[in-house]
Amino acid sequence: MNEEYKVVRAEPLTDFCRRVFESLGVPSQDAQTAAEVLVLGDLRGVESHGVARLQRYFKGLKDGVMVPQPVMQVVKETPCTAVLDGGAALGQVAGKRGMEMAIAKALQYGTGFVAVRNSNHYGIAGYYSQMALKHDLIGISMTNSTPDVVPTFGRTVMIGTNPISVTVPTGQEKPFLLDMATAVVPSGKLETYNRKGQKIPLGWAVDERGRLCDDPGRVWNNMRGGIGGGLLPLGGEGERFSGHKGYGLGLVVDILSGVLSGSANTTLVYPRTPEGKPLPSLVGHFFGCLRVDFFRPLAEFKCDMDDMIRRLKGSPKAEGAERIYIHGEKEFAFEEKYRREGIPLYHKVYENLRAVAADAGVPFNLE
Amino acid sequence: MNEEYKVVRAEPLTDFCRRVFESLGVPSQDAQTAAEVLVLGDLRGVESHGVARLQRYFKGLKDGVMVPQPVMQVVKETPCTAVLDGGAALGQVAGKRGMEMAIAKALQYGTGFVAVRNSNHYGIAGYYSQMALKHDLIGISMTNSTPDVVPTFGRTVMIGTNPISVTVPTGQEKPFLLDMATAVVPSGKLETYNRKGQKIPLGWAVDERGRLCDDPGRVWNNMRGGIGGGLLPLGGEGERFSGHKGYGLGLVVDILSGVLSGSANTTLVYPRTPEGKPLPSLVGHFFGCLRVDFFRPLAEFKCDMDDMIRRLKGSPKAEGAERIYIHGEKEFAFEEKYRREGIPLYHKVYENLRAVAADAGVPFNLE
Repeated sequence: MNEEYKVVRAEPLTDFCRRVFESLGVPSQDAQTAAEVLVLGDLRGVESHGVARLQRYFKGLKDGVMVPQPVMQVVKETPCTAVLDGGAALGQVAGKRGMEMAIAKALQYGTGFVAVRNSNHYGIAGYYSQMALKHDLIGISMTNSTPDVVPTFGRTVMIGTNPISVTVPTGQEKPFLLDMATAVVPSGKLETYNRKGQKIPLGWAVDERGRLCDDPGRVWNNMRGGIGGGLLPLGGEGERFSGHKGYGLGLVVDILSGVLSGSANTTLVYPRTPEGKPLPSLVGHFFGCLRVDFFRPLAEFKCDMDDMIRRLKGSPKAEGAERIYIHGEKEFAFEEKYRREGIPLYHKVYENLRAVAADAGVPFNLE
Repeated sequence: MNEEYKVVRAEPLTDFCRRVFESLGVPSQDAQTAAEVLVLGDLRGVESHGVARLQRYFKGLKDGVMVPQPVMQVVKETPCTAVLDGGAALGQVAGKRGMEMAIAKALQYGTGFVAVRNSNHYGIAGYYSQMALKHDLIGISMTNSTPDVVPTFGRTVMIGTNPISVTVPTGQEKPFLLDMATAVVPSGKLETYNRKGQKIPLGWAVDERGRLCDDPGRVWNNMRGGIGGGLLPLGGEGERFSGHKGYGLGLVVDILSGVLSGSANTTLVYPRTPEGKPLPSLVGHFFGCLRVDFFRPLAEFKCDMDDMIRRLKGSPKAEGAERIYIHGEKEFAFEEKYRREGIPLYHKVYENLRAVAADAGVPFNLE
């Protein structure tokens, strides 16, 4: 670890984030949830969805885009389904509530599906799908997000990086935890490459005319400036390597999170007042759970999951490759290491937290 | 259309396929289902999953891998979930039954999820998801399949091209119908390129050492000969363009279709008798339905789907691109054209059908 990074332990970092949320009126328990989701992002090595975003949430709460004490309402409910209006809550707060409902339904009826409307950015999708694990359920979590992705053959961002996460219980082996943007890469990668002055691989993004582009700064500025261009869907440009599939998966996420919930969809609206003040962002989520033992005995299922994982990991490696991974494996390894040794925070992120501390009037002590 | 193709109308083609299935003892209604699924593949332009496969089914039935009059059994059932043992039926027969159960459950309880074990190749995944449409349900269909795909960093096929299909009702616009292999391309593309003597793009497949390979014949022979190599997951080689995501999606399909159903999974077993005779192939499927109006009023939902589709199609095109498509649009256009003008069958496929007719003792008359 070089001096560009500052190592911080998870506990004080979580406490600090909680106090920042509390400083803006978020009740203690909700503040704790939001803090935990952010820090779990860093613990899993997903820096782009970690405490680097604390400032954005802080600003969102100050601007009124996010509501610290939301009135969340169950708009519609049946034994296996529900629609939850998040009341413009922090996405973590509405998200956790939505997933808790899906879990309770699945425990009783075998399946539970909950669409959440009127929410905000909810952090890492895997936090919610993983909540199903301790109940031995299969968990599903997805959300729409800021439009950063162009449709196949398009040149204007119309879809978010719309992640899908699926978590599956296992026996002896680590759980299966897929947590993937439906774009080739998440937008955070543009920032990372740009910060380091590196080109991005041709095939991640297009410029304002819809042509492949390797300049991350240009893509970022064009995209966020509404000039055109953006990230490509999983599978890349056109149909040669099946970019239309990633585009389709992104739409499925938007249909379930945005359309089925009755929230905003494709090109999230991000409404503003006549004076230009931002209004709640109408992000939508979708959560699902399946109760394994409604299909087959849990022990048999877990045994087969372990067996599947071992066969995959034990299969012959490509020339030059050392190992085959299962989804979640790398992230769990990061988490173990960082819980033990502390989380390396990029120095700019660290300084950014210091600035938030000053704004929030919260002591900055991460020791 | 050149002379390499023979144009055949859907009705006599379906009748012919039905009679072939009947000749091996498949009851008329099941034979009709299997025939319809095959011909719909051709009508949608998915030649690899059309009548070109009739011979394989014919052989499967003769070998006893597929059972013409299966004893299908509901192994476990709750209001929203079920596991169906297909009794080694034709995949189309077990698949249709599974999806019918999911539909009935969703109509009553809002959600229905059915895992099918002990089945066979079921044709195009979209046939089943689309069954949900006439009930205004969101339909989901997936299946595991012959291992043709290497895991990320691997060089041995461990996963099928494991397709996912999702169908969503709309108002004025054509339905949303995603039907995608979780590999970069389906294995049929290797056959097509090989037949035409063309190289495949680097990024579709790897050779027996796990290196990128552009020779479709070599990949096919290696893969099916158990020598090594195979198709790459969606996203391609390694993690640079996120091949691990396609690999993860393929595993999700296998977990739901193979593990949750209690059928075979990763590297389908394809068991044989001590004498080497193939036994039922233990393919698994997974079907799901969501009742839209359990979430929000159907008319509103459909209106928003239409709006979303129009905004996507109306968005600016990349340089050199003429239009932006919605999933299913191309396939529906093929279907309209081919129902009107007839289906172009590749001459080798046509001759293959003639051979099947002779074997089955069924008159070959596609006029």
